[in-house]
Amino acid sequence: MLSDIDIAKKVGLKPIKDIGRSLGLEEEDLELYGKYKAKISYQALDKLQDRPEGKLILVSAITPTPAGEGKTTVSIGLSQALNKIGEKAMVAIREPSLGPVFGIKGGAAGGGYSQVLPMEEINLHFTGDFHAVTAANNTLAALIDNHIHAGNDLQIDPRRVTWKRVLDVNDRALRHVVIGLGGRTQGIPREDGFDITPASEIMAILCLSKDLAELKERIGNITIGFTYDGKPVLEKELGYEGAIAALLKDALKPNLVQTTENTPALVHGGPFANIAQGANSIIATKAALRMADYVVTEAGFGFDLGAEKFFDIVCPNGPMCTSAVVLVATVRALKHHGGAKLSDLNAPNVEALKKGLPNLGKHLENIKKFGMESVVAINRFATDTEEELEIVESYARKHGFDASIVDFWSKGGEGGLELAEEVKRLVDDKRCQMHSLYDWKDSIEDKIKTVATEIYGAKAIDYTSTAKKDLKKINQYGYHELPVCIAKTQKSLSDNPKLLGRPENFLVTVREILIASGAGFVIPITGDIMRMPGLPKAPAAKKITVDDKGDIENLF
Amino acid sequence: MLSDIDIAKKVGLKPIKDIGRSLGLEEEDLELYGKYKAKISYQALDKLQDRPEGKLILVSAITPTPAGEGKTTVSIGLSQALNKIGEKAMVAIREPSLGPVFGIKGGAAGGGYSQVLPMEEINLHFTGDFHAVTAANNTLAALIDNHIHAGNDLQIDPRRVTWKRVLDVNDRALRHVVIGLGGRTQGIPREDGFDITPASEIMAILCLSKDLAELKERIGNITIGFTYDGKPVLEKELGYEGAIAALLKDALKPNLVQTTENTPALVHGGPFANIAQGANSIIATKAALRMADYVVTEAGFGFDLGAEKFFDIVCPNGPMCTSAVVLVATVRALKHHGGAKLSDLNAPNVEALKKGLPNLGKHLENIKKFGMESVVAINRFATDTEEELEIVESYARKHGFDASIVDFWSKGGEGGLELAEEVKRLVDDKRCQMHSLYDWKDSIEDKIKTVATEIYGAKAIDYTSTAKKDLKKINQYGYHELPVCIAKTQKSLSDNPKLLGRPENFLVTVREILIASGAGFVIPITGDIMRMPGLPKAPAAKKITVDDKGDIENLF
Repeated sequence: MLSDIDIAKKVGLKPIKDIGRSLGLEEEDLELYGKYKAKISYQALDKLQDRPEGKLILVSAITPTPAGEGKTTVSIGLSQALNKIGEKAMVAIREPSLGPVFGIKGGAAGGGYSQVLPMEEINLHFTGDFHAVTAANNTLAALIDNHIHAGNDLQIDPRRVTWKRVLDVNDRALRHVVIGLGGRTQGIPREDGFDITPASEIMAILCLSKDLAELKERIGNITIGFTYDGKPVLEKELGYEGAIAALLKDALKPNLVQTTENTPALVHGGPFANIAQGANSIIATKAALRMADYVVTEAGFGFDLGAEKFFDIVCPNGPMCTSAVVLVATVRALKHHGGAKLSDLNAPNVEALKKGLPNLGKHLENIKKFGMESVVAINRFATDTEEELEIVESYARKHGFDASIVDFWSKGGEGGLELAEEVKRLVDDKRCQMHSLYDWKDSIEDKIKTVATEIYGAKAIDYTSTAKKDLKKINQYGYHELPVCIAKTQKSLSDNPKLLGRPENFLVTVREILIASGAGFVIPITGDIMRMPGLPKAPAAKKITVDDKGDIENLF
Repeated sequence: MLSDIDIAKKVGLKPIKDIGRSLGLEEEDLELYGKYKAKISYQALDKLQDRPEGKLILVSAITPTPAGEGKTTVSIGLSQALNKIGEKAMVAIREPSLGPVFGIKGGAAGGGYSQVLPMEEINLHFTGDFHAVTAANNTLAALIDNHIHAGNDLQIDPRRVTWKRVLDVNDRALRHVVIGLGGRTQGIPREDGFDITPASEIMAILCLSKDLAELKERIGNITIGFTYDGKPVLEKELGYEGAIAALLKDALKPNLVQTTENTPALVHGGPFANIAQGANSIIATKAALRMADYVVTEAGFGFDLGAEKFFDIVCPNGPMCTSAVVLVATVRALKHHGGAKLSDLNAPNVEALKKGLPNLGKHLENIKKFGMESVVAINRFATDTEEELEIVESYARKHGFDASIVDFWSKGGEGGLELAEEVKRLVDDKRCQMHSLYDWKDSIEDKIKTVATEIYGAKAIDYTSTAKKDLKKINQYGYHELPVCIAKTQKSLSDNPKLLGRPENFLVTVREILIASGAGFVIPITGDIMRMPGLPKAPAAKKITVDDKGDIENLF
């Protein structure tokens, strides 16, 4: 079997100028990064505003196993399938983070015959967007510590600086550090820590800003910490939003690439789906909607995390309306939810599968709560039996949803023509019915309760004393009309990673609530949320290499 | 008076494809980064090997003041002037570091009518080379800490990991840190620190490697630390040189841009000139030599630092031969060496100037020690008087060197036509006479002594007990045939920043000796060498901004 990079190398890529031309973009509208990558200029983005908007389709998933259920592959494959049935479609997805590439995970640009290309470039530095976010984030961090060092006019409490540094590296040794050691001329000693770049609020801001003016405004609104008497300090009190935005002036422009079948793709931005919104940039999705009749996009993790945030945070920020959801399910994950061990998922197990189906059921119920049309995409793996696939299909149908078995990995767009037809049928000639789950004006407690009870299925919410203090501060300083971006494990509908399937009668515990006032949300934290991954004992980096001509080898 | 960025914005840039074509490069030889920046492909570099080589001219300087003496402006201006007198010339210089741009210094891409453009791109992310170095450096750091965390098969002593993390930010708070805190699953606690990216050994390696194979080999040879029983640990024992090289596969390709007068320029790599070699990449300089008859390049800081390393480390690594040195002197710096305060350099002061001239004299003596032809370029400032300029000119002549007053800043290439003619006269129809100062096979002590006595003018060398231990280790483990890259203050010919002019009868104290076995040199440290700058009380970042169309403002 060919690996992703082997398949990628076999594809005849079209010059990105030609891909741009197929979207009505002239050469002057593109800023080329080599032959196969380009950024779309601000002027071109302006010109697009006159065009009509296409339909937006969101790909989400059931509660995933650690390996993921192939959402990106389905998103890319579906855009290819829509083109194959004669429609003008494109895909708009996130950029992968560099850190995990060298760990266990390998690349994150789809797979098999449904990839975005050049995959090795997209997985490494791509057009430098993540590096720009890292530089912007860390320049701001240095400016904050410099302010404290140089007299601290703003009276920032060094123990309550909330702005952390980031690196796009899996580096557990940087999770908890002490900085500013070495004496009086070397800064103020304080506890600190590094997150991975996708967890930076700058990344969340980049993906919510529709232009440079909004980007600057949002950066100015970042809460960087608190004063000795407990008042929040905003970035604009320091006054560096212009310089930080200058570092992001190119990163904000969407990146145009193509899929394995030369379907146009925008790959842009990559915020986490727990402590941030988990979707590619609004600027890219809105540009795609002006260039294609169908735009397929993806939200991170399961429907309870990425999709809920997409409908309650991303779409209202656009504003954008989503016309349909494609919910990706796999026989493997459902068996896992029914009790099968991760190591046994290759073996047929109808009993476990049936026991796991209520996980799918709950996500289907949740989709309806946003007024959304949906179809289930059953992502076929070689080890699935026909009987197992049939069980999932009829379960979906019984609950009033269309279902379609897809194999985009090994067949490209051909692997899901029926899904493409169903999506088309769901969205054509219909007004977009999407609505949010809650009103931003509800209290923070009500918003958390709505998401946790309605979407996760919790019976009640518990707040630690820290969370209660955070809540008080949020209300006191006027952050209470922000939406809630709940950070929760992706492994369960609940906040306990061990509760598989469709948990019931559980409490959700809010441990603390962070303020991301630049991104424009608060982050109730439930459970241990990993913001800086580590490397495994045998990192993928051991095999990855480059040959003498510059070709990357063994990147999966 | 127009600022650098105002002048830069007025210049009519040619498409970089046209600049490439003027050098005999086809469109397929270039990897475009927007319209005005391109990398030269490996295939194109291979093709260049058949062409004859031009002459290499090194721009160096007297001992500089903190503001710098305008070496980059002279390098760029001279390449323009050579074109104006009908020769085919180009310039090959370093990329600026991002950190200082937001501090005091502002940009570093020449000035006035002798800049490399687009200066705001070159000063910010450019083509991502520095970010790639940062990522490569920090990925290796994470892999090292992960090895220790995961069982430490190589028995690396956590107290003696010499591989540091880097960021391209001026951030004093990261100079001394403790990492790995937080308990058993968060890595091994140890003292550590961050350097700025140009100080990374990866940067030194990138600029010494002629192809990807050499790059990988050098990465493998990095000494990352020592075992509990004191043996050096090389990167290749971990085995990640392929992955680290993969991160650098594009960064190794030279960047083609143009000057304010559309002269082709390669701007590539940027190692420090104290703890590293302080010159742009060999791969770029060698490519330039195949594309132009005259290539102007620059070495960091004064002749004693950058140029000595250029002749003793960079050129032998090429191998490359330098045909002439242009030594930049300013009336201002010479007055400073003669005792005038930095705040008084605008006032005429013939007495101080005359007292400062021996600094120039010593550098001129040093040039002869490498068998080199040279001309003094007196970089005119508006506050210089004709009398002062004349004094410098006749001092140079008296010592057997041509001298020429240049004003590349305000006049572009026109500001130094006479210098261009003199350079041409010096190098045309002559065999390259350059030689190194010492034999790499000499002992480390002899090599240090040769540089310190012959070039700095020291009377003797002192070693601290740490340095003596380092020396023992270097001899024991076979690093003794590496050249010495002495880290010394740039403010004095001696290792004491307060000794201006031409110090005599001083001791040089070697405090420790670091091993950069990937780059292929050892680094005797004399004095406090800053490897992570800080920000000033009022950082330049306060004024830098970007307008709504993406134009950078107030970047100097």
